[in-house]
Amino acid sequence: MTKPINFLNERTLKGTFFGNYKPRTDLPNVVEMYMNKELELDKFLTHRIKFSEINKAFDLMVKEVVVVAAAVAWEAGKPLVIEQVEVAPPQAMEVRINVKYTSLCHTDLYFWESKGQTPLFPRIFGHEAAGIVESVGEGVTELKPGDHVLPVFTGECKKCRHCKSEESNMCDLLRINTDRGVMLNDGKSRFSIKGQPINHFLGTSTFSEYTVVHVGCLAKINPSAPLDKVCIVSCGVSTGLGATLNVAKPKRGSIVAVFGLGAVGLAVGYLLFNVLAEMTDGGVDRAIECTGNINAMISAFECVHDGWGVAVLVGVPHKDAIFTTKPINFLNERTLKGTFFGNYKPRTDIPNVVEMYMNKELELDKFLTHRVKFSEINKAFDLMVNGEGLRCIISMDD
Amino acid sequence: MTKPINFLNERTLKGTFFGNYKPRTDLPNVVEMYMNKELELDKFLTHRIKFSEINKAFDLMVKEVVVVAAAVAWEAGKPLVIEQVEVAPPQAMEVRINVKYTSLCHTDLYFWESKGQTPLFPRIFGHEAAGIVESVGEGVTELKPGDHVLPVFTGECKKCRHCKSEESNMCDLLRINTDRGVMLNDGKSRFSIKGQPINHFLGTSTFSEYTVVHVGCLAKINPSAPLDKVCIVSCGVSTGLGATLNVAKPKRGSIVAVFGLGAVGLAVGYLLFNVLAEMTDGGVDRAIECTGNINAMISAFECVHDGWGVAVLVGVPHKDAIFTTKPINFLNERTLKGTFFGNYKPRTDIPNVVEMYMNKELELDKFLTHRVKFSEINKAFDLMVNGEGLRCIISMDD
Repeated sequence: MTKPINFLNERTLKGTFFGNYKPRTDLPNVVEMYMNKELELDKFLTHRIKFSEINKAFDLMVKEVVVVAAAVAWEAGKPLVIEQVEVAPPQAMEVRINVKYTSLCHTDLYFWESKGQTPLFPRIFGHEAAGIVESVGEGVTELKPGDHVLPVFTGECKKCRHCKSEESNMCDLLRINTDRGVMLNDGKSRFSIKGQPINHFLGTSTFSEYTVVHVGCLAKINPSAPLDKVCIVSCGVSTGLGATLNVAKPKRGSIVAVFGLGAVGLAVGYLLFNVLAEMTDGGVDRAIECTGNINAMISAFECVHDGWGVAVLVGVPHKDAIFTTKPINFLNERTLKGTFFGNYKPRTDIPNVVEMYMNKELELDKFLTHRVKFSEINKAFDLMVNGEGLRCIISMDD
Repeated sequence: MTKPINFLNERTLKGTFFGNYKPRTDLPNVVEMYMNKELELDKFLTHRIKFSEINKAFDLMVKEVVVVAAAVAWEAGKPLVIEQVEVAPPQAMEVRINVKYTSLCHTDLYFWESKGQTPLFPRIFGHEAAGIVESVGEGVTELKPGDHVLPVFTGECKKCRHCKSEESNMCDLLRINTDRGVMLNDGKSRFSIKGQPINHFLGTSTFSEYTVVHVGCLAKINPSAPLDKVCIVSCGVSTGLGATLNVAKPKRGSIVAVFGLGAVGLAVGYLLFNVLAEMTDGGVDRAIECTGNINAMISAFECVHDGWGVAVLVGVPHKDAIFTTKPINFLNERTLKGTFFGNYKPRTDIPNVVEMYMNKELELDKFLTHRVKFSEINKAFDLMVNGEGLRCIISMDD
């Protein structure tokens, strides 16, 4: 329905059927356009399924599921398998991100090996990563498609007592839960293979081209930061940096002992230029334990100086480990603390750690000792198992 | 030799032999002067020995030893015996004080019982006290006879790394040593009975009318402070007060759990009006353990809230006790600290605690539930063993 004057004002209304193409005459020429690269088709082809799964095509169209490559751990300690995985769209307060780079951290390895931890398989590991927002679920207002983000294995709801406390980053809603393989919203996984759910890991599961993360576990970062560098800020480097700056708080001239020379330990070590390996008279001023080995934890505590010494536990312990010491070691004015993610609040603080890198106050390059394609992700596991290098960047696009 | 003009100037020079008294005629009248209280003799009679120990009279005259009443513990757990004890004069950097009031603290009881501690007998216990300087040894410049002091079981040399540290009060030279029964200067005791050395306790041994203390273990206090009140500042009250103000540092509105309701625990408790006995949701903000019981220590730590909770150990543990907990309790951002004497530096800080009392910012009277004469000191032990009252003041002069 329109007024005839709209036509009299020299507007034209046309219709077309199949673009006015004559099938036999014209379509061969359209194919030639594609062959001559005058027409791009690949970007339209987001999914591919077998004929027997034709119903999935209907689901994809209805639900906006994406089917992407992900490295699935089917069994503890067995090589990951690159699979085509359906990733459901983000639900309320969730964000789907296109992972650009991820890296392997010891925590992935521990849970993949499942020696001291509860096994939960099949699972998509990965939590140290950087990516770009693809789509957002209902209620998400602070992120939009295209934003650069670091997914973090712990979250910040900004509403609970912990988030409101200056001291804690252990958000009641979104704190790490290593045993949970599903999303909080509905207790279900966003990953599936032919309908079989695949478990999430730490709410991040970054060993996948696309993943769904709670908005509270995403730090929005400077879009000019190189994602293949700052991806390691999302776990190891921040943990070591924060354990030192936020928790141990050494004073100028303090002697600091660092237990463990993984990426976390070295993040501490690079920060402190005068790390002393040998024991000093009466003990060190600060000790930072980054191995998770219970004996190293006890040694770290007992090696701090009485009167003022502070030991900080960072490494994830075996679930059955017991810390033991004589109580007089505390009464002699030693302090023992632990930290989780260096006491950083992910959304509030991590963008600032990225800025430290951008301002050349933090060096990341020396941690990045290896780089592999996503299809070769098992090489990253081999490197870590063999103790080679610090961080292996896994590039999703190569 | 003098100039004769000195006599011409109307000066007289006389001599006398025995005061010019005629023995048979005049001395009965001098005795009558004593009987009529016109002449005081008692203050001259500082010592009394048996004829068989006549050589001690020679020693006393030569060495300025004082012989005084002291409560000697001859055996573990057996009632103290009031003995006449020789107290040698103060040596270099030592001070001899006249103890005016002392009180019984659980630490005296523990070492007297010697169940969890190394036995060392005979010994003069006592470390919570107030007194007046009688004489000072070589090199002592900051105290003089007549000064009011609190002896403290730990010291402050003001020269070592600990004394120079803002955080520590664990002086390298003078920190508590429960196994030492002698003075640092020469490795010998200043107490003896008929030549048999009696062990010191904590460098204070205040269950004696006179005691010798290192100058670094004496806090010089406001001379108008009542010694029968502020004597408890020298141990228990300061420990509880400092554990709270200097170490636990609760914030306004913090929920604090106090383990133990002895004088130390109540010093904490009186300071905090809102002590909650029941567990709060997720744990308390601060916990202060004042019993020394290892299970209470573990509970105190494990009851603090993750994210920000701080537990402070104050109570002296059994020497074989082992503190155990899961390390994840630390990683969840709980802090465990111990304190020794509430982190107060004795010479620097304790005079200020006395001033808090003088300014009515600290209440002491409610701790002082009992009072006995020195001759009844074993009653104080009975009261403590039976859990009656908080502090029993032992008055040396009554």
